[in-house]
Amino acid sequence: MILLKNILLEDSPADILVDRQRIARINRTPLDIPGAETVDCSGKAVIPGFVNMHNHAAMVLLRGIHEDMTLYDWLGNIWKIEARMDKDFIYWATKVACLEMIRSGTTTFNDQYWYAPHARQAAIEMGIHPVISFIFLDSNNPEMARRQREACAKLWERTLDWGDESSFTISVHSVYTVSEENILWANNFALEHGLKLHLHLAETMMEDADCKRAHNGMSPTAYFDSLGILGPHVIAAHTLWLSDEDVYILGQRKVNCVHNINSNLKLASGFRFRYNELRDAGANVCLGTDGAASSNNLDMLEHMKNTALLQKAWRRNPAEMPLDELFACATEHGAKALGINTGVIREGAYADLSLVDINNSYFLSPGSVKANLVYAAHSDVISSVMARGRWVMQNRIIPGEEEILANARRVIKSLSL
Amino acid sequence: MILLKNILLEDSPADILVDRQRIARINRTPLDIPGAETVDCSGKAVIPGFVNMHNHAAMVLLRGIHEDMTLYDWLGNIWKIEARMDKDFIYWATKVACLEMIRSGTTTFNDQYWYAPHARQAAIEMGIHPVISFIFLDSNNPEMARRQREACAKLWERTLDWGDESSFTISVHSVYTVSEENILWANNFALEHGLKLHLHLAETMMEDADCKRAHNGMSPTAYFDSLGILGPHVIAAHTLWLSDEDVYILGQRKVNCVHNINSNLKLASGFRFRYNELRDAGANVCLGTDGAASSNNLDMLEHMKNTALLQKAWRRNPAEMPLDELFACATEHGAKALGINTGVIREGAYADLSLVDINNSYFLSPGSVKANLVYAAHSDVISSVMARGRWVMQNRIIPGEEEILANARRVIKSLSL
Repeated sequence: MILLKNILLEDSPADILVDRQRIARINRTPLDIPGAETVDCSGKAVIPGFVNMHNHAAMVLLRGIHEDMTLYDWLGNIWKIEARMDKDFIYWATKVACLEMIRSGTTTFNDQYWYAPHARQAAIEMGIHPVISFIFLDSNNPEMARRQREACAKLWERTLDWGDESSFTISVHSVYTVSEENILWANNFALEHGLKLHLHLAETMMEDADCKRAHNGMSPTAYFDSLGILGPHVIAAHTLWLSDEDVYILGQRKVNCVHNINSNLKLASGFRFRYNELRDAGANVCLGTDGAASSNNLDMLEHMKNTALLQKAWRRNPAEMPLDELFACATEHGAKALGINTGVIREGAYADLSLVDINNSYFLSPGSVKANLVYAAHSDVISSVMARGRWVMQNRIIPGEEEILANARRVIKSLSL
Repeated sequence: MILLKNILLEDSPADILVDRQRIARINRTPLDIPGAETVDCSGKAVIPGFVNMHNHAAMVLLRGIHEDMTLYDWLGNIWKIEARMDKDFIYWATKVACLEMIRSGTTTFNDQYWYAPHARQAAIEMGIHPVISFIFLDSNNPEMARRQREACAKLWERTLDWGDESSFTISVHSVYTVSEENILWANNFALEHGLKLHLHLAETMMEDADCKRAHNGMSPTAYFDSLGILGPHVIAAHTLWLSDEDVYILGQRKVNCVHNINSNLKLASGFRFRYNELRDAGANVCLGTDGAASSNNLDMLEHMKNTALLQKAWRRNPAEMPLDELFACATEHGAKALGINTGVIREGAYADLSLVDINNSYFLSPGSVKANLVYAAHSDVISSVMARGRWVMQNRIIPGEEEILANARRVIKSLSL
C-alpha cells in the first residue's frame, strides 16, 4: 500500500491510498494507514494518467527523417522503411516511445503497429498499459487478404494467454488500404470476440474524395456505415473531414472519435475538427498523438494545448474547449472507449496517475492547476508517474533509460536510413 | 575567455571561443587556447539565443486568471488589475519572466510594459538583454496625452546614462488607444533620437473594422501609413488582419512584423498570418510570444513549432515554413529589427547562445538537431544559456530562482486577485 499524503486534487488537498493496482481511498482529511508506505506530496498536484488513443509507437525512431511532406508522399516513404524493420527494432523503438509517454504522463496507449507482441512486451516491461492490434492492410490483394485473416486468428489465439496488463484490438488500417471483404471479416471477428475495432477514418480531403469516387458518392463514414461496421466498439482516428451527415452517423453509432491535432496540422491534413458537433451528436471524443513520425512527439499535454488553441481559433471563440472537457477527452473518454477503469482519480479505478510539481514559476498565479499545466507549463513539471499502482517514473528518473537509448541507436543504424 | 569544445554547430562539431561579450572564433578543427576556461560540450549542440520580439514580460503573473475571453473583454479585465500594480510587482514579475525566458533559451526580449526602468533592472540582473519602452496609451484624453509626452521625454533623458546592456524604444500601444497627435509626436520623437517604434497593428478583425469606420475606410496599416510613420524603425506586433494592399505597404516600408501565434490562437484573433506574402513583399518577419497572460508562456521553441504547424495547416501545404526560415524569424530577424549583433553563431556577434542536450530520446533519429529540437523536444533539453558571454543558466540551474519565486508569491498576494 502506498499513501500519497497532502496532494492537491482538483486544487484542494487530499490523501490518496493506493492498494495493489487500484486507488483504494481518497480522503479530504489526513489519512493514517498503518503499514502503508507514506509519500509526502506537498507541493505536488495529482492528475489522472493520460490515455493516448491513437499511436504508432515504434515510429518514434522515424521522426525528423521525412519532414515537410503530404500524407500520401510521406506514407510512401515510410512504408519503404517499414519493410526493413524487424522485431528487435519494434521492441526497442516501443521502449523509446514508452520513455517519452511516461515522461509526459501517459499510462495507457492505443497502438497500431507491426510486430505487436514485441511492442506489447516492451510496454509491459516499462510498466504502462499497451493496447496492441492486429492490422489489416491488404491493398486489395486477395492472397494477402487471406494470409492476414489467418495471421489475425493466430495472433488472437496467443492473446488468450495474456493477462490484463495489455489489451488487444483489431485494426482496419483505412478505407483506402483494406479490401471490403476483410473490412467485413475484421469487424465480424472483433464483434465475435468482444474486441475493439481501430481504424483511420476521414483523415484527409483526398481520402474523402477518393472514397466518394470509388463508392457511389459515399464518404468514408457513410461507406463504413453502409457495411454495418460502425458502433461503440469502433475507435476511429482523425474523423476530420466530416459532413453534417457523417457527424450524425458517428454520433448515432456512438463511435469513439480520436482527434490528433499536431499530426493533422503538420501533414496539412486540416484543423477544423468538429468537436462540439461530434460531442453533441453522441460520439465519444478522445485525443491521441498519432505516431511521432508525423506529430512529432507523444506528449499528450502539448496535444491538449494545441487542441484547445485550434478549437478556439477556427471557431473564432476563445471560450471553446473548456479545460474540464479537454481533460476528459485526454483521460476518461479514452478509458471509456477501451473499457478500462482508468483516466480518473476515483476510488476503485486503476492507480494510473501523475504527480505534478507546482513549486515553480508556472503555477505562481492563482489560476487552476489544470489551466497552468495545459497552457503555461510543459510536461517536464510531471515529476513522477504511477501505473497500476507502481511507480514507472520517480523524480524524472525512468529505470533503464540508458540501456534503451543505446539499443535504440543500434537498431536505427540497422535500418540504414 | 571561455572555450566551448566539441560542440555541434549546424550538425557538425566545432570549437567556439568566447572572449568577453562576443564570439571570438569558430573552428571546425580543435582549438587550443592557453588561459581559456575550457568547457567540454560533447553531447551538446549550440543554437543562437532567441530574440523574443513582442512581450509584456511582467504579465507572466497574470496568466490563468482570465481564461477563455475575447481580446477586448480580456483587456478590460486586465487593465483593472494593472491599475493596482506597482514597481515592486513589475520588478519581481519581470524576474519571473526572465526565469522562463532563460529556461527556454531567450537572451533578448522586446518588452512593452509599465514601470519600464524596473523591468529593465530585473532583466539586467538576470543577465539577459531587455528592450524596454515608454508606452503611449492616452485613450484620446488630451490631458493624459500631454502628460505622456512629458513623461516620455523624461524617461528618455534617463536612458542616456544607460549602457548597452539594455535598449530603449518608444511604444504606440495601438491605433485604437492612442490619439493621432501622440502617434505623430511619438514617431517624431523616435526618429529624432534614433529609437525604434513598437506598436500593436492589425491584431483583430474588430480593430480592422473599427479603424475603417473611424478613418475613411483605411485599415490600421493604411491609416498609420497615411500618417507617414511606417518605416524600418517600426516593430509591428501581430500584423494578422492584412489586405494585399496592407502587405504591400508593410513590405515597401520594410516594417518589422512580429508574429505571435499562440496569443492569436488563444484569444481567437485568427491564424492566417501571411508569412510568405510579407517576406516576399520585403517585410522583416520576426516571432514573439506576446505576454504570458494570453499566450500562456514565453517559450519561443513552442511558438516556433506552432508557427510552423499553422503555416503548413492553413495553407494546406506541409512544405511551408522550412526550418531555416523559422529559426531566422526567431533569432536573426529580431536582431536585425533591433539593430543588435545577436541571433547568430558567428565571429564578432554577441555570445548569446544555448547549449542543447542531445543525449536523450528526442535526438535519436538521424534528423537534424533543429528539426528534432523544434518538432520533437521541448525547451527542457536546453541545458545551459549564455548571454553576452556570461552563463545565465548552467545545467538548468538559474541563480536566485528560490528568492524570485518567494517574492513573486508575495507581490501576487498584494494584487488581491
